[in-house]
Amino acid sequence: MEEFDTLRYKDGVLTLLDQTLLPEKVEYRAYDTAEGVYEAIQTMVVRGAPAIGIAAAYGMAVAAHKAAKKDKEEFIKSVLSAARYLAESRPTAVNLFWALKRMEEKLDSLKGLSAEEIIRGLEAEAEAVQKEDEDANYRIGENLLSLLKDGDTVLTHCNAGMLATSRYGTALSPLYIAKERGMRIKAYADETRPRLQGATLTAFELYKNGIDVTLICDNMAAAVMAQGKINAVITGCDRVAANGDTANKIGTFSLSIVAKHFGVPLYIAAPTSTIDMCCTTGADIPIEERDPREVTHIRGVRIAPEGVKVYNPAFDVTPAAHIAAIATEKGVVYPPYEENLKKIF
Amino acid sequence: MEEFDTLRYKDGVLTLLDQTLLPEKVEYRAYDTAEGVYEAIQTMVVRGAPAIGIAAAYGMAVAAHKAAKKDKEEFIKSVLSAARYLAESRPTAVNLFWALKRMEEKLDSLKGLSAEEIIRGLEAEAEAVQKEDEDANYRIGENLLSLLKDGDTVLTHCNAGMLATSRYGTALSPLYIAKERGMRIKAYADETRPRLQGATLTAFELYKNGIDVTLICDNMAAAVMAQGKINAVITGCDRVAANGDTANKIGTFSLSIVAKHFGVPLYIAAPTSTIDMCCTTGADIPIEERDPREVTHIRGVRIAPEGVKVYNPAFDVTPAAHIAAIATEKGVVYPPYEENLKKIF
Repeated sequence: MEEFDTLRYKDGVLTLLDQTLLPEKVEYRAYDTAEGVYEAIQTMVVRGAPAIGIAAAYGMAVAAHKAAKKDKEEFIKSVLSAARYLAESRPTAVNLFWALKRMEEKLDSLKGLSAEEIIRGLEAEAEAVQKEDEDANYRIGENLLSLLKDGDTVLTHCNAGMLATSRYGTALSPLYIAKERGMRIKAYADETRPRLQGATLTAFELYKNGIDVTLICDNMAAAVMAQGKINAVITGCDRVAANGDTANKIGTFSLSIVAKHFGVPLYIAAPTSTIDMCCTTGADIPIEERDPREVTHIRGVRIAPEGVKVYNPAFDVTPAAHIAAIATEKGVVYPPYEENLKKIF
Repeated sequence: MEEFDTLRYKDGVLTLLDQTLLPEKVEYRAYDTAEGVYEAIQTMVVRGAPAIGIAAAYGMAVAAHKAAKKDKEEFIKSVLSAARYLAESRPTAVNLFWALKRMEEKLDSLKGLSAEEIIRGLEAEAEAVQKEDEDANYRIGENLLSLLKDGDTVLTHCNAGMLATSRYGTALSPLYIAKERGMRIKAYADETRPRLQGATLTAFELYKNGIDVTLICDNMAAAVMAQGKINAVITGCDRVAANGDTANKIGTFSLSIVAKHFGVPLYIAAPTSTIDMCCTTGADIPIEERDPREVTHIRGVRIAPEGVKVYNPAFDVTPAAHIAAIATEKGVVYPPYEENLKKIF
């Protein structure tokens, strides 16, 4: 499908598309040390929770390759210390910890085997992490596609696409599956200030994959919807509370209000791993504030007066009442979410 | 009040704050020819409909000064040709034509006098254009202020401030007047993509004038309003239809929907010159689309893949039903606008 891969692994080398250079340059970077993979995650060469988890899992395979010639005890020590080291690369990324824990458990189960066999086992486990992500994304995409009809146009916010995952993405998955099936689903992409993931990543991956995509600024949604051009809004999510309240990239809440005004349904693409049944409502989700420079500077160029106050929340919480459905890999969940989310666990 | 002036005129020289360099540099440019003033308007050294009109009026005084030593007939010809020339600088700016027409009529009424007397007459007329703008802005500001109370916080979009006018601005006028009166009205400024007038101009002029201002991205309005931080939204306008539908900078419509959702009133600052009683509803206002590069590039830096489709409407139309009041220099107009706008003419 794609002209590019988010990540590739072969024989101790993890190759990543450098997302910090998009959309200007499509350049790959090859990493054959855990230190290299750490830096790639930290500097956002690779980003998106699922993609970070997969990269970290391969990072342990990379470390194992590098340590292959050490004696057995040293070999195991090296791989374990790589796991602990990689976990520090993005301290708040839940998928990262989850993937590394899974790899450590695998390592533990293989301890009795030769270094060569352990390496093969770790590689297979990382491939499984990647494959399971791809499968889940495909199922989310099929479930979302069941909510659309041929010829529809969807508006998306931020990037929940293949660049954030192994393949397909979550919110963008139905677009890719539709294309594979010869359906014509078009997209509008919010540029998504302040970090512009919609312009640099979503517009990039859809355009390069031959999906009909139109880029707009975040504040143009009402103007576009007023013309009847949008059939559904689909976004990813950072965390879904037990009542369906959904934390996602800043701007999703505003967009949900505009969509509701025009009677356009909002669908959330949510792997079950992002649904937090311990979190009762959206009020329990803390709002992270980020560096004011993300607002006052764009790619290093100052656009606001020095010293001016800035409010820069990284995400906002869209109330469950604005969400028409939540699509998971286990099926589509409809309101009342408090009741229906329980059923998929 | 301000540390800077949008425009100043003295003895044949028009001095303009170069707004293309804001917020990085506060630099003034002096113009002593009509050609120079033309270029300043065309390249947006000066922008904002009222400020453009005033600059053009002074442009005729500048041209008259330059031609002072020519024989009488040549002198009149030079000034008239400057008027026609200046009218081409921004072909869609209504205030520009209005101000130049007024200056031409003044010239016509002075024809019998000496060049020296004509120059003084034109200078006085341009000063009157400027003074009347300032007076109208002050009255609009007082009227808007009557809708607020001490301690309130307003959210504004784009720049309808002193940088767009002779002084005070329209939407920002109540903030400056409140400060003069020792009241404390705070502001949030939408950065206003794609051209970022909120970040580069509104945040700049409020911050430099000691108004408490916080810059946000356009998509953060819901997150801010959900916290109860905004008491009113105030924007300027490009054109108000007879039924109250209001064309303003792209994003105003989305913002109006979000404000309505939270029960936050939206007030439009509208000099009566922008109310078009010949335009029945907003549906009669054509939507201008602008250069895609405004979206794909920010200050020359590419942020979107080459070749991607872009939709870039310059403004949108906010329905009258979303507008709590329209503040003019003749008073505050409330719904039903169809009836009540007539009364001020």
